[in-house]
Amino acid sequence: MRPPIIILTEAELRALVPLDLAAIDSMEGAFRALATQAVVMPPVMRLDMPLGEVDVKTAYLPGLPHFAIKISPGFFANPARGLPSTNGMMVVLSAETGLVEALLLDNGYLTDLRTAAAGAVAARHLARADAASAAILGAGMQARMQLRALSLVRPIRAARVWARDGAKAQAFAAEMAQALDFPIAAAASVEAAVEGADVIVTTTPASEPILHHAAAGAHVTAMGSDAPHKNELAPALLAGGTYVADRLAQTRIQGELHHAIAAGLAAPDAIFPELGQVIAGLAPGRTDPAAITVTDLTGTGIQDTAIAAFALTRARAAGAGQTFTA
Amino acid sequence: MRPPIIILTEAELRALVPLDLAAIDSMEGAFRALATQAVVMPPVMRLDMPLGEVDVKTAYLPGLPHFAIKISPGFFANPARGLPSTNGMMVVLSAETGLVEALLLDNGYLTDLRTAAAGAVAARHLARADAASAAILGAGMQARMQLRALSLVRPIRAARVWARDGAKAQAFAAEMAQALDFPIAAAASVEAAVEGADVIVTTTPASEPILHHAAAGAHVTAMGSDAPHKNELAPALLAGGTYVADRLAQTRIQGELHHAIAAGLAAPDAIFPELGQVIAGLAPGRTDPAAITVTDLTGTGIQDTAIAAFALTRARAAGAGQTFTA
Repeated sequence: MRPPIIILTEAELRALVPLDLAAIDSMEGAFRALATQAVVMPPVMRLDMPLGEVDVKTAYLPGLPHFAIKISPGFFANPARGLPSTNGMMVVLSAETGLVEALLLDNGYLTDLRTAAAGAVAARHLARADAASAAILGAGMQARMQLRALSLVRPIRAARVWARDGAKAQAFAAEMAQALDFPIAAAASVEAAVEGADVIVTTTPASEPILHHAAAGAHVTAMGSDAPHKNELAPALLAGGTYVADRLAQTRIQGELHHAIAAGLAAPDAIFPELGQVIAGLAPGRTDPAAITVTDLTGTGIQDTAIAAFALTRARAAGAGQTFTA
Repeated sequence: MRPPIIILTEAELRALVPLDLAAIDSMEGAFRALATQAVVMPPVMRLDMPLGEVDVKTAYLPGLPHFAIKISPGFFANPARGLPSTNGMMVVLSAETGLVEALLLDNGYLTDLRTAAAGAVAARHLARADAASAAILGAGMQARMQLRALSLVRPIRAARVWARDGAKAQAFAAEMAQALDFPIAAAASVEAAVEGADVIVTTTPASEPILHHAAAGAHVTAMGSDAPHKNELAPALLAGGTYVADRLAQTRIQGELHHAIAAGLAAPDAIFPELGQVIAGLAPGRTDPAAITVTDLTGTGIQDTAIAAFALTRARAAGAGQTFTA
């Protein structure tokens, strides 16, 4: 007898799984597992079409009763039609039987959430414990979530934001200062935004470096590079810092590291630590308060499986969603 | 405004999309497109876990308004739990916007259907027009569907079936003779089953060759080889026949061709025609009534996109399924 399938909508998932410390902890567990367990994570499947693209990610994490397959479309003419450019859903299957257990119709919300949570995990393990000021580059939805996530793990008391569109930076500053209850200023340049900042998070779709310098002791999280052409960090900044990948095999070909390798500032086969190894104590992270640490987040299927399993556990505990027998 | 998602169950899909000539024609169109259009079909994504495996397939076909992403789990301890070993579903997305349009909770039915339909397409283009006798190796569900599909495209008037388990072959013969209204005999050996047969279809999970000879003029469809270790045809039979792949890049690494290459009977880079090229008249198929033709079907994402689009069109026309707003 097949068990019924639980279907959860975006609104239900937003209510069940807000951006909080529990979500961040679940992401930390996923990265730790990547370094310490026999995780199975195939390369991302990508389908390129005339009007858009779709990425499919998956991973199996020993010990979790479920695994997720995530479908992430990006169709960049959508906003002209009044539709969001990114969407998507996750299918959650039993790791015991392969049966579909849940359909998470999240329209990309869980991806946004796990990406923000990964930024917080990086800051928790690499930023100085007393990091109090943040600079956010980019002023979109992910920029908002990164600042909120960061403020859950570090005692942030002030932030600056920069965006190519100054009006968006102003709107971000006004909105987020109210939400987070500390002063946030819109900066006129990247340099002005990052001057003296303890933590810098880049969230733009830039394809040329926008960040060239960081203060001594700063931590930088680059979370924009989910495709080979994307590039936010100057290769020299990366090469001069303590570099940590989310998944080295992936950052070598599509992360910020890829551009440092292309610039001849990193060897193609150089070994760098992964975030999970730092979390598990298998690799050093920050060893010097004056070091610049850099985390390169390209997005991994293990994060999707972890956040989907987390959401499904919460949904079952709450009796949320509709059930459907196929 | 996001359009609602249509959810269709296995029972609804079985009623909407039976194995008929229209389904076979849709599969023929998919193979023709593969040879004549700018189809985008990434390699299959495969996740191997301790208790099972999942394949994910997709393809974009220019001109179709939708594309499908198919999730096919295989968990071989399931029958001991009273569950089927193979399952799965398809997600249908708009090729214009990337939005999810339908969830086909088919438990693998559409895969079975498109696989059987592909066998019929191969027979339609490679078997002699007067082919009247069939031999089916294997006596499972796909064996049944292959014989039904074949009888829609060729004037089959008698069949023999062989299976490792003789009782299953007997049950197949009794059941299918009633369904198809021509005599069907269970054979005691592969050799007895295929002697003089005009069309031979292999549907077993064998990992050593079971078919070594075919009569002059016979057409052979091997549809079991969806993984590198599977092997139903003796390499010499393949090498001595007119060989046609579903997708050459795939049969070279996981099809029957893979074993002929390993045996030194085909060059690793030898060019063979694909079924779509034969359909489109871009490659010869059967040029001699006495030739033995061999089609190697490993399964392609374009078939999944085609059958999903076909099912969704029928569902919309019938107003079938439930709608769901995410």
